Amino acid sequence: MNPDIIKERQNATFDVEKLTNILDGGPEKTKRRREIEALVLSDPDFKEEDPNFLSRSERYDQAVRKSAQMILKLREYGIADPEEIYCYKTCVSCTFPSPKPLDLHLGMFLPTLLNQSTPEQMDRFFMPAWNLEIIGTYAQTEMGHGTHLRGLETTATYDPATQEFVLNSPTVSSIKWWPGGLGKTSNHAIVLAQLYTQGNCHGLHAFIVPIRDMSTHEPLPGIVVGDIGPKFGFNEVDNGFLKLENVRIPRENMLMKYAKVEPDGTYVKPPSAKLTYGTMVFIRSIIVGESARALAKSCTIAIRYSAVRHQSEIRPGSPEPQILDYQTQQYKLFPLLAMAYAFTFVGQYMKQTYHRISGDINQGDFSELPELHALSAGLKAFTTWATNAAIEVCRMSCGGHGYSRSSALPDIYVEFTPTCTYEGENTVMMLQTARYLVKSYRQAKDGQQLSGIVSYLNEAEHRRVQPQPVAARPTVVDINDLASLVEVYKLRAAILVELAAKSIQQELQRRKSQEDAWNNSAIDLVRASDAHCHYVVVKLFTDKLGEIGDTAVHSVLSTLALLYALHGITQNSGDFLQAGLLSVPQVLLISVRIKELLAQLRPNAVVLVDAFDFHDKKLNSVLGRYDGNVYENLFDWARRSPLNSTEVHDSFHKYLKPLRSKL
Amino acid sequence: MNPDIIKERQNATFDVEKLTNILDGGPEKTKRRREIEALVLSDPDFKEEDPNFLSRSERYDQAVRKSAQMILKLREYGIADPEEIYCYKTCVSCTFPSPKPLDLHLGMFLPTLLNQSTPEQMDRFFMPAWNLEIIGTYAQTEMGHGTHLRGLETTATYDPATQEFVLNSPTVSSIKWWPGGLGKTSNHAIVLAQLYTQGNCHGLHAFIVPIRDMSTHEPLPGIVVGDIGPKFGFNEVDNGFLKLENVRIPRENMLMKYAKVEPDGTYVKPPSAKLTYGTMVFIRSIIVGESARALAKSCTIAIRYSAVRHQSEIRPGSPEPQILDYQTQQYKLFPLLAMAYAFTFVGQYMKQTYHRISGDINQGDFSELPELHALSAGLKAFTTWATNAAIEVCRMSCGGHGYSRSSALPDIYVEFTPTCTYEGENTVMMLQTARYLVKSYRQAKDGQQLSGIVSYLNEAEHRRVQPQPVAARPTVVDINDLASLVEVYKLRAAILVELAAKSIQQELQRRKSQEDAWNNSAIDLVRASDAHCHYVVVKLFTDKLGEIGDTAVHSVLSTLALLYALHGITQNSGDFLQAGLLSVPQVLLISVRIKELLAQLRPNAVVLVDAFDFHDKKLNSVLGRYDGNVYENLFDWARRSPLNSTEVHDSFHKYLKPLRSKL
Repeated sequence: MNPDIIKERQNATFDVEKLTNILDGGPEKTKRRREIEALVLSDPDFKEEDPNFLSRSERYDQAVRKSAQMILKLREYGIADPEEIYCYKTCVSCTFPSPKPLDLHLGMFLPTLLNQSTPEQMDRFFMPAWNLEIIGTYAQTEMGHGTHLRGLETTATYDPATQEFVLNSPTVSSIKWWPGGLGKTSNHAIVLAQLYTQGNCHGLHAFIVPIRDMSTHEPLPGIVVGDIGPKFGFNEVDNGFLKLENVRIPRENMLMKYAKVEPDGTYVKPPSAKLTYGTMVFIRSIIVGESARALAKSCTIAIRYSAVRHQSEIRPGSPEPQILDYQTQQYKLFPLLAMAYAFTFVGQYMKQTYHRISGDINQGDFSELPELHALSAGLKAFTTWATNAAIEVCRMSCGGHGYSRSSALPDIYVEFTPTCTYEGENTVMMLQTARYLVKSYRQAKDGQQLSGIVSYLNEAEHRRVQPQPVAARPTVVDINDLASLVEVYKLRAAILVELAAKSIQQELQRRKSQEDAWNNSAIDLVRASDAHCHYVVVKLFTDKLGEIGDTAVHSVLSTLALLYALHGITQNSGDFLQAGLLSVPQVLLISVRIKELLAQLRPNAVVLVDAFDFHDKKLNSVLGRYDGNVYENLFDWARRSPLNSTEVHDSFHKYLKPLRSKL
Repeated sequence: MNPDIIKERQNATFDVEKLTNILDGGPEKTKRRREIEALVLSDPDFKEEDPNFLSRSERYDQAVRKSAQMILKLREYGIADPEEIYCYKTCVSCTFPSPKPLDLHLGMFLPTLLNQSTPEQMDRFFMPAWNLEIIGTYAQTEMGHGTHLRGLETTATYDPATQEFVLNSPTVSSIKWWPGGLGKTSNHAIVLAQLYTQGNCHGLHAFIVPIRDMSTHEPLPGIVVGDIGPKFGFNEVDNGFLKLENVRIPRENMLMKYAKVEPDGTYVKPPSAKLTYGTMVFIRSIIVGESARALAKSCTIAIRYSAVRHQSEIRPGSPEPQILDYQTQQYKLFPLLAMAYAFTFVGQYMKQTYHRISGDINQGDFSELPELHALSAGLKAFTTWATNAAIEVCRMSCGGHGYSRSSALPDIYVEFTPTCTYEGENTVMMLQTARYLVKSYRQAKDGQQLSGIVSYLNEAEHRRVQPQPVAARPTVVDINDLASLVEVYKLRAAILVELAAKSIQQELQRRKSQEDAWNNSAIDLVRASDAHCHYVVVKLFTDKLGEIGDTAVHSVLSTLALLYALHGITQNSGDFLQAGLLSVPQVLLISVRIKELLAQLRPNAVVLVDAFDFHDKKLNSVLGRYDGNVYENLFDWARRSPLNSTEVHDSFHKYLKPLRSKL
């Protein structure tokens, strides 16, 4: 154990295990998580070669093996609880958090069958899929359309003569593009296509399409399928393309639990359009939690490394200090550490709320869904954007070694960054949230009493009845009091929502259409959503503190929460000054206060990342090792690089030696 | 040609070729650049396989071939001017701007020989190195030390008995780490080591160390050398490690043009310590230009793609608009386009200034060097950080396809991002600039008249003689007048320099040491440097407009400059409000004005990136193609992916099929 790291751990002012329990959601959950981790990490069947040293084809190969192995093991151990499956899965993927070839089979194909099949379809497809005879994927996105689903072009035209659907990719841009496991792994796909029957288009519906022969695995007639090529990360999965050329499937292969096409071609509408809403909310809530995990990992690596790396000098002649003692390093990392905690608690909240509401949804009560939908869209964008930038700050805070794959940080980044785009492109998500905020603002203005998290728009409206203009509102803010800071974040959000709504109003007054007015206010709308989400995060972090009983843990988490809130203010000080929510002396005071908080957190920095409790095998980072023995292990790792398998590379004989004679 | 792209080009309000000439530095330079590009791009010897589809070893192999080929061609064509060599080199590396195995031989080994060899050493080493018998690299960075050179641990101890130096890597952290071409390619290295003679250490000196056998290429005794393993990008180059175990080299292998060790071991000091200063300044100026290039490329790809991508709907029922018509997309991309122009002009200025000053330096006049040194450090950090973030904004603005390697954006990012760390870690660079600023501020305060770019610190000082406090200074700013905006940027910089200097003062009053006071003010110091650099960029962009004769070009560049300046204000509005440099209504007005500028730039967006004049082969991006035919080519590219070389991947037979029987 590196003595620097030992010293850091001796400085802890709180019981690390207690904090770990809070992060897991209770001591039993910590225990169970560690049991599952031990199950995977000690299992020789999951031993693997470092993917860094493999070609893409070898990486795919290894991933298929592990992916298949995992499904066998889950059954062997009888692990069926979705959270436990998720935990097991993250351990299997530990060295690379990269999606695996069978992820969409497990995560989309089977659940869609469960949710949208008729009993007859369940009989035909479920058991073969459960037994991995049928391996499926979910083919929605096309080359030309992603988030805007209505624009998808693939067609499924009903032919009553044969009682079949004929599927086609009518244009190049309609080729299905990106689905995981589609390129090489799957033999079936649930294809989303525009349904045509009796001359009318009825919009998107889901169809089960066999794409490869069940015994030879060769593509079936009319199917052009393959891998979409190398990407930024995602090297282990075969994201694929699928071109359909007059592919015929029986009428019974349309998923018909809700909408139906009768044998004669008559279309029967689904009872409700809101049924698919829930899944999106669920996935976006998961992504918020993923943001927290990726950020926690990155902070663990960067902070541990900063505790063992010594560089330069603060005082001439003294030993080189740990780089964690530099104020600039603390200023880079500690606000991100605070953010990792904030997002963890937001993720917990989202999951709880989803579970609470999903009971209502199952009973047909959709009343809370719009708010949760709006919140999950915005928070998905807010947390992924922030985390995306933060991972890179962590990587660059490690100097040169952050660029080595051995640090794990490049892989954390490339595997994480797609969350900004998939499951709803972030800017589009922010605008969805903004739509809800502007609607709520108008309702408040019309005197309606709002409920839930947007109810502050009532208060703001109420306040404006007072004669003073918004900006001149006197604010009494104690910059050390979290409740008071939650309040200014709330007011900032209210003011920016109002600003966006007014921009729309002004555009309309210039005789612009509703749609152009909206587009011409989009910058303000995104800004309003961002402020709303920021308020929610500060609020949820503050609320969480109320649940913490242990004094020492409460104290350190309060410092983190305060840092998170104050740092956010300095990063957006223009908003707070502009609205008159804070005075110039207060903003200057906040900068000074932040420096004090950095110094205050310094002794607990390493133990605060220890509390995330990432097993070394899960971190897979030479820089982030628990024992801090970085340099020896960096040297060991490098020597295993495939380019070192021979002392002399072929290119010497092929190009360099012959060159001499040419000159 | 895609009709959308044709229409865009018809909308141009200026002559694109004229702007290209301005960017190149004159019509002759454009002509010569295109000649050199044609030479490389039409040369069958430089044909290559798409590196995306190769393994790392194959990529290294191909890079060695091209790297060696290039050196032959440069001689064949007699290209010797450094700028033309640079131009040729960027074409050879076009598909991947990645460093090549022989880059350090050309860029560091040969120049160091030229600058620091004695005539005898020139005789022994230069011609063999010129003829590529000797292939060299420059081994400075160690595992434990990067930017902080004094901390390097490698030792060279003089042994007068044999008249040899004995080189050693005394610790694991002293192993040389990262030098390009060191791992497999080079047979010599210039090693930077702490010189010990007659029992004293004389600091870092350079030694020529043979590391591999000239005929077998096997490592020599005492040499442990190899590749440091996979990185984030840089896949074509063998960044290496080097461990020295009692390696003996003749006394004459120390580069002795300046410092010397005599046969008896007597050390002779170099005449001046400033001699190595110039090179650093030069390389950092180059990096500023590289930032502009990387950003220009990224903008070209993102803006062209945004002109051909149609998505969603602004008005229901209307055709899907080009995504470039969305205000949020314009707000992402146009400020970056403006930044690409700004950095191009800053790069031009840095190069000119360097050439102007280097004449003086050669004549022993170092008077302007400290300012240029401080400026190049700060601008290197300022432009690389901004570009680094901007590339990712461009990539993410392309939606899902931005993640495909075919977009080229992932590679632009991974090849560019190391500039934030190498040649001086960015935070350290900002602090170097801050040191100069604080020193200048103190001189101004002591009544000294400053010259050059920091002379504004005198004005600020002068102003403060007036009775009103800084923040209450009345400002009259016309937000449409660039000169007026340059002025507020200048005042902001002055105020933040003062704030940092005062923070140091306060720390000293709390009885902190100079060093601790500095470290405890580091956040403010970085912020001051950042504001200083931002002012310089806005000023240089504005100055450049004065040189533009063509009215149409002047007009569009003025719009870009205004957007750059105003966008920077909104991103830092807190600073401007806090200092009372702008009023709240002005800041609100600026937001409105920015929207107008976006709309104003929209018709010229595509031609403004066309003016960068990147050949399609240099862009190597399916999304950024000049003809806009994205989708067909994306499909073609994907089909060439190695995973598609067989319809059925081995893993099906190995893992998936056997699985069925197990269940």
